[in-house]
Amino acid sequence: MVDTITQSLAIIEFLETLHNGACKLYPADPFRRARMQEIVYSIVCDIHPVQNLRVLQSYPEEQRAARAKDVIETGLRAVERLLHKTAVGQDAGEEQQGCYCVDNALSVADVVLVPQVYNAYRFQVDMTQFPRVVSIYEHLMTLTAFRASHPDEQPDAPAKQ
Amino acid sequence: MVDTITQSLAIIEFLETLHNGACKLYPADPFRRARMQEIVYSIVCDIHPVQNLRVLQSYPEEQRAARAKDVIETGLRAVERLLHKTAVGQDAGEEQQGCYCVDNALSVADVVLVPQVYNAYRFQVDMTQFPRVVSIYEHLMTLTAFRASHPDEQPDAPAKQ
Repeated sequence: MVDTITQSLAIIEFLETLHNGACKLYPADPFRRARMQEIVYSIVCDIHPVQNLRVLQSYPEEQRAARAKDVIETGLRAVERLLHKTAVGQDAGEEQQGCYCVDNALSVADVVLVPQVYNAYRFQVDMTQFPRVVSIYEHLMTLTAFRASHPDEQPDAPAKQ
Repeated sequence: MVDTITQSLAIIEFLETLHNGACKLYPADPFRRARMQEIVYSIVCDIHPVQNLRVLQSYPEEQRAARAKDVIETGLRAVERLLHKTAVGQDAGEEQQGCYCVDNALSVADVVLVPQVYNAYRFQVDMTQFPRVVSIYEHLMTLTAFRASHPDEQPDAPAKQ
């Protein structure tokens, strides 16, 4: 019998536990971890579910793109504010721009941010409103693992026109 | 400076960590914890966000109740199936009916199930479709902590008509 686990966050947490936190995707400090989870849940509960395909299809076709754009913009505004508290380079005098959502390390927040920003570009959200989000996204997309996860890089991706 | 944490799941996890897991809201076994998180995310990502007030208000008024009912029914169908794998009393020969979502102990899955079932009743979902959900909900509502969390028990609850 194969025991399938569903729900991507449950899978990420399970794999991380199984490998004794080898990827260090969860900050060790409980308060920092809570800050990270704020970003994670802001994306996976407040943005993603209300702009996915099944939900968009419940609106008249001509409203769908505007609906998705509106939901993503409102949500990313909250994420941008949260990044003030967590990302490096937000305080005056800090030279380095934020490379990750939380401190100077990869976390689950980065893992869920990337596909959400991908969707934001897809729905033509004006990303200049969210400089921290963009700075982090652009850094993450220089990393091999994120590049390999891009939809266009999957074996069954449709050929580009 | 007050450090406010938002997002209820982040808050629950933070408080539990702060008190060294005193409430034991997360199963110790990683696989069992993953099973619990499947239920949690099925509710907090797949049901709750798409039937909350702000989203419902984006539909014409006459469609809102049906929309909420449909989303909750589809979601609880998935939760009922997940409970097959986790709740006590699902196998032939087990005398005890499930009292909790996972095994014989309170977990975060129970904490998020209760308000979702409350909403299901509010939108007049036919709950006889979900016998495990109902059995667990009814047991949980015998517990003081859940009874005290009921909206009607809050100091600012509107008087009943």
